[in-house]
Amino acid sequence: MNGSNLRALPLALLAAAAAAAAPAPRDASPEVSERIIGGALAGNRAYEKLAELTDTVGPRLSGSPGAEAAVQWALRRFAEEGVSAHREKAMVGHWVRGAERAEVIASPTAAALPLAITALGGSIATAEGGITAEVIEVRSFDELRALGDKARGKIVLFQHTMSSAAGYGQFAVLRHRGAVEAARAGAVAALVRSLATASLRSPHTGAMEYAEGTPRIPAAAVATEDAELLHRLIARGPTRVHLVLGCGRQPDVESANVVAEVRGREHPEEVVLLGAHLDSWDLAQGAVDDGAGVAIAMETARLIARLPRPPRRTVRVVLFMNEENGLDGAKAYAKAHAAELPQHAAALEADSGAGRPLEVAVRAGEGAAALLGPQLLPLSVLGIGPLGEGGEGGADIGPLARAGVPIASVRQDMTHYFDLHHSAADTLDKVVPHELAESTAAFAWVAWSLAEMPAALPRTPPSPTRAEGAAKAAAPAPVSGREESWRAPR
Amino acid sequence: MNGSNLRALPLALLAAAAAAAAPAPRDASPEVSERIIGGALAGNRAYEKLAELTDTVGPRLSGSPGAEAAVQWALRRFAEEGVSAHREKAMVGHWVRGAERAEVIASPTAAALPLAITALGGSIATAEGGITAEVIEVRSFDELRALGDKARGKIVLFQHTMSSAAGYGQFAVLRHRGAVEAARAGAVAALVRSLATASLRSPHTGAMEYAEGTPRIPAAAVATEDAELLHRLIARGPTRVHLVLGCGRQPDVESANVVAEVRGREHPEEVVLLGAHLDSWDLAQGAVDDGAGVAIAMETARLIARLPRPPRRTVRVVLFMNEENGLDGAKAYAKAHAAELPQHAAALEADSGAGRPLEVAVRAGEGAAALLGPQLLPLSVLGIGPLGEGGEGGADIGPLARAGVPIASVRQDMTHYFDLHHSAADTLDKVVPHELAESTAAFAWVAWSLAEMPAALPRTPPSPTRAEGAAKAAAPAPVSGREESWRAPR
Repeated sequence: MNGSNLRALPLALLAAAAAAAAPAPRDASPEVSERIIGGALAGNRAYEKLAELTDTVGPRLSGSPGAEAAVQWALRRFAEEGVSAHREKAMVGHWVRGAERAEVIASPTAAALPLAITALGGSIATAEGGITAEVIEVRSFDELRALGDKARGKIVLFQHTMSSAAGYGQFAVLRHRGAVEAARAGAVAALVRSLATASLRSPHTGAMEYAEGTPRIPAAAVATEDAELLHRLIARGPTRVHLVLGCGRQPDVESANVVAEVRGREHPEEVVLLGAHLDSWDLAQGAVDDGAGVAIAMETARLIARLPRPPRRTVRVVLFMNEENGLDGAKAYAKAHAAELPQHAAALEADSGAGRPLEVAVRAGEGAAALLGPQLLPLSVLGIGPLGEGGEGGADIGPLARAGVPIASVRQDMTHYFDLHHSAADTLDKVVPHELAESTAAFAWVAWSLAEMPAALPRTPPSPTRAEGAAKAAAPAPVSGREESWRAPR
Repeated sequence: MNGSNLRALPLALLAAAAAAAAPAPRDASPEVSERIIGGALAGNRAYEKLAELTDTVGPRLSGSPGAEAAVQWALRRFAEEGVSAHREKAMVGHWVRGAERAEVIASPTAAALPLAITALGGSIATAEGGITAEVIEVRSFDELRALGDKARGKIVLFQHTMSSAAGYGQFAVLRHRGAVEAARAGAVAALVRSLATASLRSPHTGAMEYAEGTPRIPAAAVATEDAELLHRLIARGPTRVHLVLGCGRQPDVESANVVAEVRGREHPEEVVLLGAHLDSWDLAQGAVDDGAGVAIAMETARLIARLPRPPRRTVRVVLFMNEENGLDGAKAYAKAHAAELPQHAAALEADSGAGRPLEVAVRAGEGAAALLGPQLLPLSVLGIGPLGEGGEGGADIGPLARAGVPIASVRQDMTHYFDLHHSAADTLDKVVPHELAESTAAFAWVAWSLAEMPAALPRTPPSPTRAEGAAKAAAPAPVSGREESWRAPR
């Protein structure tokens, strides 16, 4: 079967036709699917790696000793498993959390109540002794702008209604740009309701940005409970908050991406890149964000490296540094490999947690789906059917997507991802080993298929992707260069 | 209908018979049930009181300014609602939390990982600079004793398998007595896995005790995630933890129970007591433990006080102080009212959170169920059927139960109670207003019924209750006099 004459068929029909004809995808012998899919499911070695990374390295914020320990751990682990790997230098931002606390100041109607907060990554510190100001509450930048002078001298609280993973794409802009918009309105600090789908007084951090020509003001996430408390207190009367943040940026640090390869047997110059990010936030072990992706990618490299015969193209696993607060690793990779990007046959990134795989999608030139779809039949054992609509990559492979590299996605169950994301609760115990194994199987199979397909996927014309284009249109470019992974709502 | 001739019938038959005959319980005119049950459901004034207590008073640990503010708030609120109330002195323990932190010390296989901990109420501080020691893990006191000398000089971690509310009764002894048992084994500190049914790195505090003749060692709760982490790290090799606690006891403080009454029209000397506790732990607003109970009890008083005609007996609402760490308020009440206890016709306590009511039960002399059961027909609108088996009171009414006072229970849905109990996440947003209103209706109706029934419930012979007797048999009496509410598993 050749994909080209099926190009015009709907995907469901295509899959049905493929299943009826029941040919094994070319080069996908039962031995290979058994070794890759069966190997991922039976061995659970992704979970072992995840446990080692989270329990023996732990938090690994860019520029920290933990991040360097993670680089060394990954190199050692690749070597132990017979996968060729090396470090590629990246200068990364180094932001450090300090003391942090906030409380509602006692008033005739309210006692001094402590608030569960955590500084947003990139925030400056408050002045010595902290800031005390009245809180004013808004739900959008439009609402803030409509306030005119009323936010001057105040702390702006950004409320929102995120209640499922889909809300992240909609509301993350409040965290990213809240301090800029609040400062423009004359505010002295910004509090952003945590981008969380569950909370037990657990604030969720994440990257924020400053803009040239706008005063830099401190910014913190507030747990959803405390955002609700402030909402209720404001309804009772003027509510003042005392905020102390000791965080701040340090000089940039030399760090590294970890790059591992299984060299292709026919077209070693053609690269299928599987990314994940080695850095995490500092509040926890970073098990789902993105230890799980690191484990999936490393295990994919091992599973493919031990095949009797390497795939046609090179499979390159890149463990990026600094996805969370700057994408410096992604930028360093794109720069160092600029000349090679036209030979990047495809890219995908594992940065959606440890949930089970739901479907595969692809964003590439016309005809890509018809080429890739039939390769995925062995994933039906995981309940994965025809290719899904659309297709999105992680933040680290954004530069590749903009260069026209075809992007494949393994969409995972993210139902509980934002219960944990960027919070102290992102710990190993939240990962269900067999779900991680299933996602490892899916990623490994897709990566191998992309590397083995006789014809490479058609490319897209180089350009900003749609989602990135929209985000850029809405927001001036950050001067600090700090941006962060976010996904369009599905 | 008279209960005496139905005494031998099973409860289900009794209820069916009562429903078929469909008589209104004597004195339970539709007007009264409409005013009490309808009033509780329609007005939602319990939730308003709860919101005011939690948002304007906040945490109210015994001996703290918050606890005194709560006393004053309750007196003011009763007065505003036309309910006669006064304070009754109680000297209470005053324990204060200090700085607290712990981390796993870096080792060849483990980085320095912070642990989510919180001191147990009553714990002494660590020595200046903290304690550093290897952690040894046990699942029971028997296992600890079997270790012989192996726990000497170590930090004992008490693990358990609590996974539902029922586990609290089983495992709370580890928190209460863990430090005593660990000290007897020569340990230098105790860590107890949080008694929690959900966690996002949220440790759950609670009372612990010391014993005469046994060294006092510091004790803290560790979040379930961190208990799991320690378990995994211990499997990798010796694991050392650095623990710093700054907490400690201060001199006792003069505080108070708040006592409100609606005087009975026929037998004002006979008292139906509805208790709740005004104190909370310090980590949060104490919305479910026990702000909800306070709101239920206060609203019960209001609903009964505004009836055109008071019930036969006196309804007395007691908002106890220091339920959480000493029961000093309960002891003060029992002592001050010792002569009056034989006239306490019944007692019940609202200290099971804000969940909806499931059933009513009673523990009293023979024939009590047959007397009380028919009175409860109007609660069928809440889905409450025949009287349940058994019957248990809260800790504050323990002295009354031991004196033979009949104990009624309104059992509530506690599915999520231990997600929040004694943790920073016990906040108002967790309360579903209509569920609180339903429980208010049930408590108010039961309290009114007990006060209005022509014949008082038969009493039990004065003695320790079964559960308390069993607990005492298993554990030597604490010298500090600190004990805490716990419920037998259902």
